[in-house]
Amino acid sequence: MNPVTDPYRDIPLFPLINPRSIAFFGASNRFSAMGTNQLNSILALDFKGRIYPVHPKETTVLGMKAYAHVAELPEVPDLAVLVLPTGIVTETLKACGEKGIRHAIVVSGGFNEVGGEGKALEQELVAVARQYGIRFLGPNCLGVVNPHHAFNVTFAAFEGRPGFIGMASQSGSLLTQMFAYLEQFHIGFSTGISVGNEASVDIVDCMEYLAACPHTRVIGLYIESIRRGEAFIEAARSIAPHKPIVAYYAGGSEAGRRAAFSHTGAMAGPDQLYDGVFRQCGVVRASSLTELFDFCWVLGACTIPCSHRVIVLTHSGGPGAAAADACSRNGLALPSLSRQTLERLMPLIPKTGSTANPIDLTFSQDPLAYFKSIPEVLLADDEADGLLVYCFTPHQNMKRIMESQGLPEKDIDAFTRETARQIAEHMRTLADNHAKALIGFTYQAPDMPIIEHLLASGIPILPSPERGVRAMAALIQYGRLVQNLTAGD
Amino acid sequence: MNPVTDPYRDIPLFPLINPRSIAFFGASNRFSAMGTNQLNSILALDFKGRIYPVHPKETTVLGMKAYAHVAELPEVPDLAVLVLPTGIVTETLKACGEKGIRHAIVVSGGFNEVGGEGKALEQELVAVARQYGIRFLGPNCLGVVNPHHAFNVTFAAFEGRPGFIGMASQSGSLLTQMFAYLEQFHIGFSTGISVGNEASVDIVDCMEYLAACPHTRVIGLYIESIRRGEAFIEAARSIAPHKPIVAYYAGGSEAGRRAAFSHTGAMAGPDQLYDGVFRQCGVVRASSLTELFDFCWVLGACTIPCSHRVIVLTHSGGPGAAAADACSRNGLALPSLSRQTLERLMPLIPKTGSTANPIDLTFSQDPLAYFKSIPEVLLADDEADGLLVYCFTPHQNMKRIMESQGLPEKDIDAFTRETARQIAEHMRTLADNHAKALIGFTYQAPDMPIIEHLLASGIPILPSPERGVRAMAALIQYGRLVQNLTAGD
Repeated sequence: MNPVTDPYRDIPLFPLINPRSIAFFGASNRFSAMGTNQLNSILALDFKGRIYPVHPKETTVLGMKAYAHVAELPEVPDLAVLVLPTGIVTETLKACGEKGIRHAIVVSGGFNEVGGEGKALEQELVAVARQYGIRFLGPNCLGVVNPHHAFNVTFAAFEGRPGFIGMASQSGSLLTQMFAYLEQFHIGFSTGISVGNEASVDIVDCMEYLAACPHTRVIGLYIESIRRGEAFIEAARSIAPHKPIVAYYAGGSEAGRRAAFSHTGAMAGPDQLYDGVFRQCGVVRASSLTELFDFCWVLGACTIPCSHRVIVLTHSGGPGAAAADACSRNGLALPSLSRQTLERLMPLIPKTGSTANPIDLTFSQDPLAYFKSIPEVLLADDEADGLLVYCFTPHQNMKRIMESQGLPEKDIDAFTRETARQIAEHMRTLADNHAKALIGFTYQAPDMPIIEHLLASGIPILPSPERGVRAMAALIQYGRLVQNLTAGD
Repeated sequence: MNPVTDPYRDIPLFPLINPRSIAFFGASNRFSAMGTNQLNSILALDFKGRIYPVHPKETTVLGMKAYAHVAELPEVPDLAVLVLPTGIVTETLKACGEKGIRHAIVVSGGFNEVGGEGKALEQELVAVARQYGIRFLGPNCLGVVNPHHAFNVTFAAFEGRPGFIGMASQSGSLLTQMFAYLEQFHIGFSTGISVGNEASVDIVDCMEYLAACPHTRVIGLYIESIRRGEAFIEAARSIAPHKPIVAYYAGGSEAGRRAAFSHTGAMAGPDQLYDGVFRQCGVVRASSLTELFDFCWVLGACTIPCSHRVIVLTHSGGPGAAAADACSRNGLALPSLSRQTLERLMPLIPKTGSTANPIDLTFSQDPLAYFKSIPEVLLADDEADGLLVYCFTPHQNMKRIMESQGLPEKDIDAFTRETARQIAEHMRTLADNHAKALIGFTYQAPDMPIIEHLLASGIPILPSPERGVRAMAALIQYGRLVQNLTAGD
């Protein structure tokens, strides 16, 4: 693709999120300083671009040549990052403008969010940016993480992998706190953007960038208030049919509203209003932060089912009944299986098992049947468009049985790994071959052998029956929202 | 205490859950057999009592002398465990009765839960038990785990610690699947009982046992249907004021009901009926399996707050706002802090922070202030009776800072461990010194240094703001239920 006409690279935010060169203000050789920490984050991820620390006194910063003034830099960098005391932010941005820099991240706080004088300061900052044609993130933000570009300017070390969740957040630290959380499920951010006070770049700009970003399969939003309501609706309506958007709105209740106000200084609107807005423009609403990431996960990883009919497969009654109950409460139907399916299923199910939906094996001696032959039959049934599989393998028991047969430890480990690998591969193939949604759920930790392999193969395994069911319901809801949107065209 | 008059030891279920000697039917030297597996579970936990395998052909089973017939045993064991084909269960129980055995666990299925002939077989089994005065668990159950007695007869290896959650479950495998799940939070079962078809011992009998059990601080119930409604209400009403009861009911929705029916063969009642029953008799209802264990955890670990007023402490806006929002939605109030508290707090909070409730530090450089000095001030405020603390320490960052200062790896580890230990100790002391509820919430994995130490010290750290808030609300709900119960006396 010719970069000159690439619409993605032409988006105003592109250089801000994929800079080739950075002027960094506020890092020193004092390791506990916020700015130093943030520059260290950039270095830790082995950023490939050029970095120019600017510091009034130091000649080197973290081993790099430092410049006393931005005017002295040998080139015009794509991006300036400002982690400076409030009082010198505006003049520094002005100097950047004069150098010709057109993109900035203003981490510094002390503006609109503190009220009073801060508001005036923010107006000045915006005026300077306008004067020089600068687009900037913040102020009062934590910056950007773009693992696909090895670029992490947040204060937190990035401990993850490049993923498919593009996120814009009105809480910056939330992003950083999700690095390790997402990583345990083998998922991650394509890009995470902390929007701060949104003085220049707001959440709608981020949505437009993420819509075009080829690494982003789903857009997640943490919202305390939407400033440009109409622009949000318009952007969401045009993006949602092609790329799912999931939003968590924290300002819906009285206490949430107050917390949001003291956090960003913005007023939040009533819950029902946001509910209506989200529905109207095809945005899937998450009722908690946990759900925000659960929904992003499955929407980025699964086929969207054509109906609300699903099958639950379990070998344990409790989690199966809990999943069935959650299905009912979340508007999912559990159809009876077709006669054909039942005939194919019978030889695979123990005598004590049940072929009603949930399919309950009551116990599972053969993980390959449970994770391959049976799901294969179930996914072929025309009665349903989604499959929820309880994933729990009695690792300790299998180990015990093998030990009693005199197998040495290393053979047990090798066998366990090989079984886990095979199961994950079968499941992956099944998910690929059937245009149906496949979601697992478990109570086992993500580092248990089979769970780990399933996660690594890209199959979402949610940490409880209810979360698995809610995630399946989100897929179905998204399908319906898109139908409604496109029906209106 | 004289065992002869100890009311706990006199409970009919006592020998079933704390046997000194066991006759085991259905174990062989075939390692994949269910019975062998269950006997292996008993052996694996280093059970201190005597075990007598009974097998028609083998002379030894798993290295122990085997007996061809129960009549040949050198003593009358406290308990018989039957993992046998359906057809020979009744005659075996009869032989046990003739030997003088008065307690049994019937793991075998093929009775009421399969309908038809199975129902007749269960009636015969009950008749034999009546004839010999035998009380038995099951049929169609997984048995008992009592880690305080090193007794685990379930098929799953016990990977946990003796804990304080006494559970009776109509799903047996659910119990076993929670062994590792609870262990990761440093909690565990005092006793877990799989009730199966409840032909002789039912969930009400288990509640009465668990109410008397000194290791049990809270009773958890997984319910698909209650057979003896009036007895349940009477038992719960008398137990709840002294020991909290938490119930998850899976049969409330149409699909849950059908799943429950095919699982245990019992009919479930409408959701509202169970809701009313639970409220009426002081039982806290959990809306998911995850909540069942969350609620048991905090009810066993925390002081019950006297009001619904709580404080949220955070250093990150997103999780703080999410917690505040969840508080509103769950009926908790976030009062403003008293003037006195604000005065004491000011010097401890960064300039960018907020002392509205949530208290948001926006960033935290000093974990000892965050986990000690600030909570100490907040817990002293008369305006609130509960404290929710966001627990997230940027482990990688702290490590990075120490590394940049040239600290060797092992000193960093030692320092991290020591800080974590101190923090956990401070928090534990605070929780002990104030008669208030203290619950943490986090997105970090339970094995992160500080989280791990906090969990080990017995402070509940829930895995999300919403779960932390719901758990706090459960404490408050329990307090109110007990008030209502005792007001009616």
